[in-house]
Amino acid sequence: MARPSEDDLIARYFAPLAGPAGLGLRDDAALLAAAPGHEVVVTVDALVERVHFLPEDAAASVARKALGVNVSDLAAKGADPLGFVLALALPPGWTEAWLADFAQGLERAAAEWSCPLIGGDTVKTSGPLSISVTALGQVPEGRMVRRNAARVGDIACVTGTIGDGALGLVLRSAPAWAVGLSSQQREHLADRYLHPRPRVALASILREHATAAMDISDGLAGDLAKMARASGLSAVIDVAQIPLSEGATAALAAESDLIDRILTGGDDYEILCSVPEDRLESFHREAHKAGVSLTAIGRFVDGEDLPAFRHVGGEKRYPAGSFSHF
Amino acid sequence: MARPSEDDLIARYFAPLAGPAGLGLRDDAALLAAAPGHEVVVTVDALVERVHFLPEDAAASVARKALGVNVSDLAAKGADPLGFVLALALPPGWTEAWLADFAQGLERAAAEWSCPLIGGDTVKTSGPLSISVTALGQVPEGRMVRRNAARVGDIACVTGTIGDGALGLVLRSAPAWAVGLSSQQREHLADRYLHPRPRVALASILREHATAAMDISDGLAGDLAKMARASGLSAVIDVAQIPLSEGATAALAAESDLIDRILTGGDDYEILCSVPEDRLESFHREAHKAGVSLTAIGRFVDGEDLPAFRHVGGEKRYPAGSFSHF
Repeated sequence: MARPSEDDLIARYFAPLAGPAGLGLRDDAALLAAAPGHEVVVTVDALVERVHFLPEDAAASVARKALGVNVSDLAAKGADPLGFVLALALPPGWTEAWLADFAQGLERAAAEWSCPLIGGDTVKTSGPLSISVTALGQVPEGRMVRRNAARVGDIACVTGTIGDGALGLVLRSAPAWAVGLSSQQREHLADRYLHPRPRVALASILREHATAAMDISDGLAGDLAKMARASGLSAVIDVAQIPLSEGATAALAAESDLIDRILTGGDDYEILCSVPEDRLESFHREAHKAGVSLTAIGRFVDGEDLPAFRHVGGEKRYPAGSFSHF
Repeated sequence: MARPSEDDLIARYFAPLAGPAGLGLRDDAALLAAAPGHEVVVTVDALVERVHFLPEDAAASVARKALGVNVSDLAAKGADPLGFVLALALPPGWTEAWLADFAQGLERAAAEWSCPLIGGDTVKTSGPLSISVTALGQVPEGRMVRRNAARVGDIACVTGTIGDGALGLVLRSAPAWAVGLSSQQREHLADRYLHPRPRVALASILREHATAAMDISDGLAGDLAKMARASGLSAVIDVAQIPLSEGATAALAAESDLIDRILTGGDDYEILCSVPEDRLESFHREAHKAGVSLTAIGRFVDGEDLPAFRHVGGEKRYPAGSFSHF
């Protein structure tokens, strides 16, 4: 079967998605301008088949995830999306049907998050399918929300629910704990692994309220440790306060050891942030208005220890690196 | 052997390279500002082992190439580099020695081209080593040099010499024509395949003189065809005027058919541009001052045909796609 050329692929599948800054994908570069008085925020995340997604995942889901994990980083930095570039490495067995589905998923996600495609490169590889996305956003000058600026006494908050993505992945190997879950609960967990929900609506609210923030991609325990360390602090978390979905709650009831997976498993793509106590009420109110659920789970404290996760009967500190995906 | 974590790798090999916009690679995103009145130019190119470079290539050379092909795009658009982000997919057999060499090559190239590392992502892959670089540059507002703006009568110019990279690659299979070349000539060709020389010094001069430009990465014939088509024109090239290195000249003397490889082989990373005839003298003068050699090779003309390459006794038009690397 004759394969379309790279130019054909771009014209057929990607050019229709391009935002104005992409110049129709007919030039060698994209051209964009930040609004006056704004800076540009840049983030890159790569996804590799069998490492970050699975061959059976729908192409549209993979596309949504590849863009979503990057838009999640922008949101956590308080940045509004400007656009993204895509480097796509296609393995020998790629099909046009896959690519059409991928492009459609990308288009929908890009529209939903106001983050249009502005450029790309398509290459072939003898290895697994790989996708590298670089996303660009903008923040008013000096207002990017850093990782390293939490202060003693700040409240640690998270958006959404924690652990669903990690449990959604485990679910694929039909674990014993899944038997007691409703099909709706199982679907929720599976969906959260496949489809990150970057908290774009929270970006401007974060800028106004948070002292520091990052997105949770490698597990709450590990990412909190990174944020605390970067800020020269430790943290104390009340495990009972950590927001769990119905599915995660049911799973945990069936197998209490799953708490470690929930806290270290990754693929949350929620936002972790530090908020001064006197800003908390306003932060809650604004987040609620924006449709983002927000939960206070603990506090940043003096010290160099790993964050403590307190539960009935004790506390646990998760050793750094126990959650490394690399 | 224990492998360092991703954080260790970043701290050890990449953080020392980071420019200010990279925030020490200790945040989740880079933060940069274009100069007032400037726009941001963004380009992405991915390199895959055995497709764009070979396993025996030195890691430092691979790094230089990965950055160079992107900086070449910026230069061709008249953009001054701001920085780049790197997505690196490491195969199972990677070594720290390789990575150290890679980082060193990257550091040298980034310093030479004033294009610092500002962010990245390191992942593992079961496939070949892959590198995706997104480079950002800036141009004064409205001054990016487009691909589609050549005008009838404009002179087609190229920097440097054409075909060396393509011949440098062929050289590795010890072709008959290589026998008559001096070792210096062979080394020159081999080096031009490994080490692109992005024409950073030409960026501001291009902005002042060229109506359109692009970098030559897929072969002069194919890239000229793209530029002419994008501009709604054709072109007539005098093959005798195309600048060749001593090595390419000697190779061509030994095997005249190599002209097709020279014109379609790719890996030049020189700049092709269109210049109004009355700007040519000033363009030559400024390029010379900047240390970039420049040659007029033909002219853009009315028409929809593929560009004609005229030589003694006839002309040749290279069919589109004959030079596709995909």
